[in-house]
Amino acid sequence: MTTAGRDAVFLLTDYGGDDEFAGVLRAVILRHAPQARIVDLTHGIPPFDVRAGALMLSRCVTYLGPGVVVAVVDPGVGSGRRAVAVTARGAPGPAGAGPLNLVGPDNGLLGFAVDALGGVAAAVALPGTVSVGSTFDGRDLFAPVAARLWAGATLNDVGMPIDPESLVRLPAPRMIVSPAVGTGLGSVEAEVLWVDRFGNAQLAAVAGDAARAGLAGTLEIRTGTTTRRAVLVPSFAALEPDDVGLLLDANGHLALVCRLGSAATVLGVRPGDIVTVSQIPGRSPGTGISVPDDGRGAS
Amino acid sequence: MTTAGRDAVFLLTDYGGDDEFAGVLRAVILRHAPQARIVDLTHGIPPFDVRAGALMLSRCVTYLGPGVVVAVVDPGVGSGRRAVAVTARGAPGPAGAGPLNLVGPDNGLLGFAVDALGGVAAAVALPGTVSVGSTFDGRDLFAPVAARLWAGATLNDVGMPIDPESLVRLPAPRMIVSPAVGTGLGSVEAEVLWVDRFGNAQLAAVAGDAARAGLAGTLEIRTGTTTRRAVLVPSFAALEPDDVGLLLDANGHLALVCRLGSAATVLGVRPGDIVTVSQIPGRSPGTGISVPDDGRGAS
Amino acid sequence: MTTAGRDAVFLLTDYGGDDEFAGVLRAVILRHAPQARIVDLTHGIPPFDVRAGALMLSRCVTYLGPGVVVAVVDPGVGSGRRAVAVTARGAPGPAGAGPLNLVGPDNGLLGFAVDALGGVAAAVALPGTVSVGSTFDGRDLFAPVAARLWAGATLNDVGMPIDPESLVRLPAPRMIVSPAVGTGLGSVEAEVLWVDRFGNAQLAAVAGDAARAGLAGTLEIRTGTTTRRAVLVPSFAALEPDDVGLLLDANGHLALVCRLGSAATVLGVRPGDIVTVSQIPGRSPGTGISVPDDGRGAS
Repeated sequence: MTTAGRDAVFLLTDYGGDDEFAGVLRAVILRHAPQARIVDLTHGIPPFDVRAGALMLSRCVTYLGPGVVVAVVDPGVGSGRRAVAVTARGAPGPAGAGPLNLVGPDNGLLGFAVDALGGVAAAVALPGTVSVGSTFDGRDLFAPVAARLWAGATLNDVGMPIDPESLVRLPAPRMIVSPAVGTGLGSVEAEVLWVDRFGNAQLAAVAGDAARAGLAGTLEIRTGTTTRRAVLVPSFAALEPDDVGLLLDANGHLALVCRLGSAATVLGVRPGDIVTVSQIPGRSPGTGISVPDDGRGAS
Repeated sequence: MTTAGRDAVFLLTDYGGDDEFAGVLRAVILRHAPQARIVDLTHGIPPFDVRAGALMLSRCVTYLGPGVVVAVVDPGVGSGRRAVAVTARGAPGPAGAGPLNLVGPDNGLLGFAVDALGGVAAAVALPGTVSVGSTFDGRDLFAPVAARLWAGATLNDVGMPIDPESLVRLPAPRMIVSPAVGTGLGSVEAEVLWVDRFGNAQLAAVAGDAARAGLAGTLEIRTGTTTRRAVLVPSFAALEPDDVGLLLDANGHLALVCRLGSAATVLGVRPGDIVTVSQIPGRSPGTGISVPDDGRGAS
Repeated sequence: MTTAGRDAVFLLTDYGGDDEFAGVLRAVILRHAPQARIVDLTHGIPPFDVRAGALMLSRCVTYLGPGVVVAVVDPGVGSGRRAVAVTARGAPGPAGAGPLNLVGPDNGLLGFAVDALGGVAAAVALPGTVSVGSTFDGRDLFAPVAARLWAGATLNDVGMPIDPESLVRLPAPRMIVSPAVGTGLGSVEAEVLWVDRFGNAQLAAVAGDAARAGLAGTLEIRTGTTTRRAVLVPSFAALEPDDVGLLLDANGHLALVCRLGSAATVLGVRPGDIVTVSQIPGRSPGTGISVPDDGRGAS
């Protein structure tokens, strides 16, 4: 069942690219596992932003091959927070997925990703380290543990079993569908999960939510500060330069987008903001989003 | 002729380093080709800037070993734009060059690089994907195709042959030489191709252009907004702290530079701007740029 | 003694992530040494900042496995400055360390790192290159030399022996301890070596320096522009949100820190600034920093 020696070690941190943190993490893993493939998912998570990291990891995780994930966004380093390793059940995602072990702080960072893989099969608490300075558990704890797991160690070889139910969880993203009922038009109220480099604002709603709300054609977008028209479109290319669009993004989520511009800037939204998308009364509904087979999109 | 299994997969995108796009691209390639070497050329191309990406790829491409390039700057994703794979002729550059396949959108991104390798030997259009969201062809189309090419598939295995002449081309960079004639002094009018991290401004002119214009010694630089003296120098070290210099850069292009400072800031120029470099009348011409054997520099 | 073929090539430059410089460096190394493992330490050193690069390399170097370091922060490229390769003695650091060769400009960049490894065992000057443009020795000189060393070449195969004493040295960081004597309270005056992504300000003082100054409990921090209270703490978690703390960081240095915020911003300090940390009179001293066995911390 093991693919030890052929797996990859995937890295996701808030270390940034300018300091040497990510480089030292890579070097320590290779020192303990000289044949490991190391794959940087990202080191660009905003400093200390556990929620952004957890969401990002959940978007990646079904696309990874078998291996070990080292995830570090760790404002509690040096405190009493637990360090953990977990094995995900490995439910196949849209692109398939192999068995994955994930290593990181027990602060909710791993939760959404493990959910996307079908939940936790097993979890252990890692023993404390005797480290210089107690500020760099990525180097001193997570990297060596990941290297051992990569080389074939089991969870029980690296820590003490804990109840998966005891793992820290982040609050689920806010998402409320108001279905169209009779003549009443539907809407979706959803948290902004992510604003990407291009300014696309991903919402905590998937294709099935749009379908339940009956969203189609021209829509109204309300943020805390502004109200705007938007159009439900199949792709960026269907938008006029000044339009705001709503489309199904590559993670199967609804996203607010512009063509060659930043929807987040136009709408003034950031991750964590709440946005309401409503069907406009008296309008031809136009085309809705086609819902993939599983009714949820590919999240 | 194939070096399948020993080649690298080279990545060049506008995905940036903060989101997970580049990480997912890497992971998907490795999933399909677990032994592939993945080499990030850059993910820092300005969002949607196809021209910047095309120029950057052309500066890299003669230094690559054999393999597959995945290039993604793709504002037309989800539209009817074609996706293509091409084989370059592989003309040896100054540092030599192996056979290369390049995969990306058919929007001009690959053109300057293929020119630098002697042109297109063959090209195919990739079949469309059935993807979630139609926004991430890097993950859903280009990565799997690159992995197949890496593993030994031929162009015809991954797409349908197309006429290389039908590939989309970007306009050639603007560059006009006015040769010195009789007592008339020469000049070069050239597009700024690139401003690098250090503020050096690369021009669309090479050593042979400087020679034809008779540029040497002290020069006048005119931009849209300013006029300044500059000195033709062999290296940064020959500049005084407040000088603007013109030198032959590592791609064989003329570049406007400062010592320990940003010439682009001093001159107020950005990529796409037009700069005129003129010989100053009544001046001792000083030393010109020595022209490499091929008369064009190393571009 | 050689581990040729299994070593890594470690990269540390000021090339940044947006241009193709780092990508070309990787590609050229792989072209000459297709089986080499390439590990990016960082490419985010501030442009031309040799001191920042030298300090960063010294923080990394004891965590690397055997291999070759390519370090490039090279404002003097194209001038008469020497290019060198050195073998470090390889004194074991806190995490152990293998034999390392380091390649780069002779401008002080390698010095602190080699010190951390016990000094220079041997050094050679690299022959000059005949390159296009004389601006990219990373590509044209250091990468090919590193690939040769990786493949088993000796220093003498790649250059001419030089006296290690002749290598350029940077000034040692400023650090002055005023010990507590009788009723006089102690203090440490130290250079800020580094401000990391999280705003932590590392000082040129280690645990033993704090012990000699008798620092404990509540302290006074003086910078050039401000005076503030700070608390000596074992970890970030011991700080209140508005506190400034002094702790032993992951390199065994004293660092000024905040909890979930930037101490450097709060204190207005940058690398190179001088900070004085003094014991406050009439205060219960509280808990000091426990000094690791070697009395210096893990630098």
